[in-house]
Amino acid sequence: MRNSYKLKNRIDLAVCLVLLAFGSAVRAQTGDAEQIEKFFDAALTNGKAYGWLNHLSNQIGGRLSGSIQAEQAVEYTKAQMDSLALDRVWLQPVMVPKWVRGTPEFAFYETDPGITTNVPITALGGSVATPPKGIKAGIVEVQGIKGLEALGKSKIAGNIVFFNKPMDAAQINTFNAYSDAVSQRYSGAEEAAKFGAVGVIVRSLTHKLSDFPHTGVMAYGDGPVADRIPAAAISTNAAELLSTTLKLRPDIQFYFKQNCKQLPDVPSHNVIGEIKGSQYPDEIILVGAHLDSWDLGDGAHDDGAGCVQAMEVLRLMKEIGYAPKRTIRAVLFMNEENGLRGGTEYAKQARAKGEKHIFALESDAGGFTPRGFSFDAGTAHFNQVLAWKPLFEPYFIHSFVQGGSGADIGPLKEEGMVLAGLRPDSQRYFDHHHSDNDTFEHVNKRELELGAAAMAALVYLYDAHGVVSQP
Amino acid sequence: MRNSYKLKNRIDLAVCLVLLAFGSAVRAQTGDAEQIEKFFDAALTNGKAYGWLNHLSNQIGGRLSGSIQAEQAVEYTKAQMDSLALDRVWLQPVMVPKWVRGTPEFAFYETDPGITTNVPITALGGSVATPPKGIKAGIVEVQGIKGLEALGKSKIAGNIVFFNKPMDAAQINTFNAYSDAVSQRYSGAEEAAKFGAVGVIVRSLTHKLSDFPHTGVMAYGDGPVADRIPAAAISTNAAELLSTTLKLRPDIQFYFKQNCKQLPDVPSHNVIGEIKGSQYPDEIILVGAHLDSWDLGDGAHDDGAGCVQAMEVLRLMKEIGYAPKRTIRAVLFMNEENGLRGGTEYAKQARAKGEKHIFALESDAGGFTPRGFSFDAGTAHFNQVLAWKPLFEPYFIHSFVQGGSGADIGPLKEEGMVLAGLRPDSQRYFDHHHSDNDTFEHVNKRELELGAAAMAALVYLYDAHGVVSQP
Repeated sequence: MRNSYKLKNRIDLAVCLVLLAFGSAVRAQTGDAEQIEKFFDAALTNGKAYGWLNHLSNQIGGRLSGSIQAEQAVEYTKAQMDSLALDRVWLQPVMVPKWVRGTPEFAFYETDPGITTNVPITALGGSVATPPKGIKAGIVEVQGIKGLEALGKSKIAGNIVFFNKPMDAAQINTFNAYSDAVSQRYSGAEEAAKFGAVGVIVRSLTHKLSDFPHTGVMAYGDGPVADRIPAAAISTNAAELLSTTLKLRPDIQFYFKQNCKQLPDVPSHNVIGEIKGSQYPDEIILVGAHLDSWDLGDGAHDDGAGCVQAMEVLRLMKEIGYAPKRTIRAVLFMNEENGLRGGTEYAKQARAKGEKHIFALESDAGGFTPRGFSFDAGTAHFNQVLAWKPLFEPYFIHSFVQGGSGADIGPLKEEGMVLAGLRPDSQRYFDHHHSDNDTFEHVNKRELELGAAAMAALVYLYDAHGVVSQP
Repeated sequence: MRNSYKLKNRIDLAVCLVLLAFGSAVRAQTGDAEQIEKFFDAALTNGKAYGWLNHLSNQIGGRLSGSIQAEQAVEYTKAQMDSLALDRVWLQPVMVPKWVRGTPEFAFYETDPGITTNVPITALGGSVATPPKGIKAGIVEVQGIKGLEALGKSKIAGNIVFFNKPMDAAQINTFNAYSDAVSQRYSGAEEAAKFGAVGVIVRSLTHKLSDFPHTGVMAYGDGPVADRIPAAAISTNAAELLSTTLKLRPDIQFYFKQNCKQLPDVPSHNVIGEIKGSQYPDEIILVGAHLDSWDLGDGAHDDGAGCVQAMEVLRLMKEIGYAPKRTIRAVLFMNEENGLRGGTEYAKQARAKGEKHIFALESDAGGFTPRGFSFDAGTAHFNQVLAWKPLFEPYFIHSFVQGGSGADIGPLKEEGMVLAGLRPDSQRYFDHHHSDNDTFEHVNKRELELGAAAMAALVYLYDAHGVVSQP
C-alpha cells in the first residue's frame, strides 16, 4: 500500500509537470495558430494559385526545358510576381539541355499475317532516335533490370527488351512503389545494351491501367555513344496486352520508330521573387518548385502546382499583412526533369555570393490534399519541428517524417540548414505523372490551395522561430 | 541540485512506467498489425470493389428509390454477394417513396427584350411540379433562410426567392460548410412560402464553380398541401451570373418549369449478406452503406462507393481466410436519400427479432482517400478506440474523432452499442454530390480500395476485441 501510494504521488507529479510544459507550449503557440489560420482563410477564400495554374496549364502548356513554352512560363511567372509588390523579382540565367521529341512516335506488332496491334508509345527523355526507318526485332519480356541476367545474352542479343515490372500496388505511399520500379526506365537501355539489345520499351510507371504512355528521364551512363539504343515507354494497357500476347506468340516482331534528339544547350532562367526580412534580412527562407515540365500534358501537377503554391506563399504574406523577419524567397527552378541545371546553378550562385539559407521547402509531389512534410534534418531539429505538428492538425495535416525534400533544393544542402518537402496525398499522382493525363482539370482548387496554405504556415513558423535546434 | 535530482528520479520512474505500458500495448497489437496488413494487401492487389462499382455506375446508373435502376442494383449486389460463399444472403422488404423527376426541367430569364439566358436547373427531391406552363415571376435574392426575415413579406410575396448563400470555403472539412448551408435547400420552400413566395431556386451546394445543378432532398413540413411551392437548384455558375444580373436588372422575370411528382410508395429491399461468427454468432457487427442514389449522374461516390466497400469487407475476410468470432453483416440500405426507409425498417426488424448489434460502421462520404473515422460513443469507449489509432497510421489514417456516424445506421442506436462513420478526405466530395458530375470516372481505384481496407481493419478490431469499455 505504502509503496503504491508513493508511486502514485510520483506519477501525479510527473503528470503535472508534463501538463505544465504542455500548457506553456500551448500558450506560446496561440499566436502561431491565429497566424496560420489567416493563411488558410486567405488561401481558401481569395486564393490566386488556381488561376495562375490555369494560365500556366491552358494558355502555355507543357514546358520542356529549352522550349518556347518554358520561355513563356518564365515570362508569365515573372510578370505575375512583379504584380505582387515584392521587394525584388529577377531572372537567374542558367544553361539548360534541349532534348526534343520530334514527330510523334509510332509502334506496333503483328500477331498474324496482316493483323497488327498499335501500341501507345512515347520516347523516354534523353533517348536517342531509332534509325529513320525504325527498329523491327523480336521482343523479350523481363521484370526489371534484374531480369536481364536471368534471361542472358543469348536470348537478348538482337532483340528489343520489354521491361514490364509493375509498380507495387501494396505500397501505401505510391512514391515508394515508383522508387522500386524506376530503375528499369532510367537505366534499362544502358543495362540492356550490355546484353546486346537493340532497343528497350518500358511499362509506364503508373498503377492505373490506361492508354497513356508516361515518359520520364533516362540516361546512358558512361558507355560509348555508339552503343546507345533507343528507349521508350508504352502504356500499362499496352504492356498487359503485349505480355499476354507474348505467351501466345513468343516470336512476334515489335516495331517502333522515334526521332527525338539532343540539341546543344540553350539559355534559360530560374524565376525568383523575394520579400526582404525586417530583422534578419541575410537569413533566407526558400520556397520552391520547378517551372519546367515534360512536353506531354500541361504539367499541371508536375510541377505547375508547386510553382503557383510557392508564388502564393509570398502573395499570402502580402495579403494578410505579415512582414517576415527573415527574407522569404520563392524560386521557380528551370530543368528539374532532365538535368537539374536550375537547382544546381542556384546553389552555386548562392555559395558564390555567401548567401545564408536557413530553410528550404519544395513542393514537387502534385497539387493534392497536403498530408504533411518530410524533413531532411537530424533528430534534435526534427523534435523541434514535431512540436509544431499540433498546429497543422486542424487542417488534417498529420504526417511529419524525416526523409528527403525536393530535387531542386537538394544542391543547397549545407551544415546548419534544413530542407523539407511538402507531402500531399500520393494516391492519384502517378495516374498523371509525365503523361498526356497531367492536365489542369485533374487539379482540385481546394486541394491546391490547402497545399499553398500549409507551405505558408511552415515558412511562417521558420520565419517566426528560426532554426532553434541543431539541424 | 538535490531537489532537481529527486525530481528527475521521479520523472524517470514515471517515464519507465509509461514505456512499459506502451511496450505491452505494442506487443498486444502485433498480431492486429499483421492481420490489418493482410486486409490492405488484399484490397490493393486483388480488390473487387472497383469492378463492382464500375458495373453499378456504368451498367446500372443512378438508382433513385422506386426506379428500375434501384431494382437492378438490388439484383446485382445480391447476385455478387451470393457469389462470395457467405453464410447467408437475403433481401429485406421495405416500402419506399417514389418521387419522379418527369421531363427535363427548364429555366431562363430575359435581361433585355428577346435576350434570354438559360439556367442549368434541377428539381429538388420531393418538390412539387410547377403549373404545366411553368412559373414566371420577379426574383429576389437572399442569403439563406435568415435573409427572408430581413427582406420581408412585401418584397417576397408573388416572387420567386433565390437562395444564394454559398458554402463557406474557409471550413476545412467541407461537410461542415454543407451543414451550414443546407437548410436553404431543405426548408427554403417551406419558409419562403410563409412570406408569399411562388417558388424557390437554390444555389447548388458545392464550392466548385460549375454548370452542374446539384439536387437533394427538401421537405414542406406540416403546412397545408395547397401551400406547397416548387423548389429547384441552379448551378453555381448560374447563381453567380444571376446575382450580378440582379444588380444591373433587379426587375427581371425568372421562368422555370418542372413536372416532377410523388407517386404512391412501392416495394423495394435492403440487401444483406453475412458471415456467421464462430464464437459469438449472436453478436452482430454491421458494415453498411446506401444502395439508392439520386437520378443525376450514376451515384458512384454517393453511395455506390460505400456499397462496394461494405461488400468488399466480407470478401476480404473470405480471401485472407479470416473467420470472425462475431457475425459480420454487410447491409446495403435502400432509400437513404429521400426517406431513410431502409435504415428505419432494418432497425425495426432487428429490434423485433431481438438481434444484438454491438457495432455498426457506415461509409457514406465518398470513395476518397480514407482519413479516419468518427465514433458515436462516450469517452470511455472512445479512449479504447484511440489505442487502436497507431494501427492505422502506417496507412496514413490519423483522424479519430467523436461525432456522427451515418444516416442509415442511426436508427439502430441503442445503449451499449457503438456507431461509426468512415471519414474520407472531404475536399472533392461536393464537386460531385447529387449531380450529373457524380460518375465513376471520378473515383480513384486505390482511394476506394484503401477505404474498404480501412473499414475491414476496424471491423476486424471490433470482432477480435469486442466493445470492452462502456460505449
